Amino acid sequence: MSNDAVGEAESLDSASRRFAASVQYDGHAYHGWQAQRSGVASVQRHVEAALGRVADHEVTVICAGRTDSGVHASHQVIHFDSPAERTERGWTFGANANLPDDIAINWVVEIDPEFHARFSAIYRRYRYVILNQPTRPAILPRGVTWNYRPLDVARMAEAAKALVGEHDFSSYRAVGCQAKSPVRTISHLRVERFGPLIVIDVQANAFLHHMVRNIAGVLMAIGCGKEPVSWARQVLEHRDRARGGVTAPPYGLYFVDVGYPERFALPRPQPMGPMFLGALLD
Amino acid sequence: MSNDAVGEAESLDSASRRFAASVQYDGHAYHGWQAQRSGVASVQRHVEAALGRVADHEVTVICAGRTDSGVHASHQVIHFDSPAERTERGWTFGANANLPDDIAINWVVEIDPEFHARFSAIYRRYRYVILNQPTRPAILPRGVTWNYRPLDVARMAEAAKALVGEHDFSSYRAVGCQAKSPVRTISHLRVERFGPLIVIDVQANAFLHHMVRNIAGVLMAIGCGKEPVSWARQVLEHRDRARGGVTAPPYGLYFVDVGYPERFALPRPQPMGPMFLGALLD
Repeated sequence: MSNDAVGEAESLDSASRRFAASVQYDGHAYHGWQAQRSGVASVQRHVEAALGRVADHEVTVICAGRTDSGVHASHQVIHFDSPAERTERGWTFGANANLPDDIAINWVVEIDPEFHARFSAIYRRYRYVILNQPTRPAILPRGVTWNYRPLDVARMAEAAKALVGEHDFSSYRAVGCQAKSPVRTISHLRVERFGPLIVIDVQANAFLHHMVRNIAGVLMAIGCGKEPVSWARQVLEHRDRARGGVTAPPYGLYFVDVGYPERFALPRPQPMGPMFLGALLD
Repeated sequence: MSNDAVGEAESLDSASRRFAASVQYDGHAYHGWQAQRSGVASVQRHVEAALGRVADHEVTVICAGRTDSGVHASHQVIHFDSPAERTERGWTFGANANLPDDIAINWVVEIDPEFHARFSAIYRRYRYVILNQPTRPAILPRGVTWNYRPLDVARMAEAAKALVGEHDFSSYRAVGCQAKSPVRTISHLRVERFGPLIVIDVQANAFLHHMVRNIAGVLMAIGCGKEPVSWARQVLEHRDRARGGVTAPPYGLYFVDVGYPERFALPRPQPMGPMFLGALLD
């Protein structure tokens, strides 16, 4: 999100009201939430166009966390401003009628004008879904990360403990990461197996660029026995991306939750996504 | 499957060996397992081409059950004959390297020449996956059937009981169904909810054309309260397709299992698919 975009959103006339919305998408066909170049497919552009059709004016949206190329979301929260008189249901179903099959609005609610999808957020949560079996999947091939090496979930879960809490995650951030500080606080990092699926579930105050995929890459290397359990901590302590692990593919990565202060009373994802895991985990 | 195809498969020279394979596919891009017209994408054509590349000769495959346009499979069993000297692993990984992303071979095994994927089968099993929530899915939009009306699973499960056992399923077969007899035996028909997902799991000695989708259509009409619980039995007793229900869409339908006599010792799907349900059910 650029500061310009914030400026535009804030400068709408006083007749405008603020709305929050939850968006889900299969990111495999998109160059991320926000395209870096014009003429490239982005989720944001589709959402703005669809809401603009409903509003009958140009709509700018601000998101809780920009996802990379190929990354999915079951609950990406956005806000936008509009003076248009529409019901919450009208916004939701009107936008969905104007969105492609792989993007959908879960809900729209009118919200306190002080709400900001990015700056009001107090935590973000991702799930990284691995399909661990010898042969590749034909179903959801870009919705899970396939790993054919048998992965030991107990080793991965043990290694993950070293990353929980406040740390300098320099070794787990992308080389081009723009964040000012490499310090983040992970409140939980769980690794669980459900049949052939392994889910890495991680929540933090915020994430650095590629942080979840770099954690997933390190944990998979430990799970398959290529690296020792202590390696997750060793990588962390180097504070040097050059000594980090392989960045895991975007296919299995889902943005599943973002938390806000209770006073905003935002609807919660019920159950936590992605929808095919909804019944397995909470 | 035509009788011609069987003839071809049987007439290979005596140096040939018979192989069984399990195939999974996302059917949304295909006009079914077997295309009715040439120049149309079918799963069978891709599988034959991929195995042919590995075999270095033309390969004809026979399947356990031809699936319709848009229908998926997590475990479709096929057989084919070849004199080529390849390991089971070589067949599997070689074919997968030559298949599109939405089709994959689970395994290949050499098998008794008397094995026939279609005629040796003693039961087939399908799962019909419904996503029951107010807004449409952006993830797996062609891999589940979305129903926005709240469905009462207890009503659906109660209604389903009337269909278990041997019955004349004329009311549940497509008008153009080619089967000689409308009598089939359903050994189980379960309806269960897992969070936002509802799974109809049905096993029978064999299925008539559109039988699972017609059962799903009737059960959804009962589940949303449009029809009484007794309607599934009433429709059955009419023995008349014209008095049946709406055929449910193909999106949520998966061919998940086919049973053979134990002497063939075929690998079993472990866990039962589709893979995203693998940990929920068995």
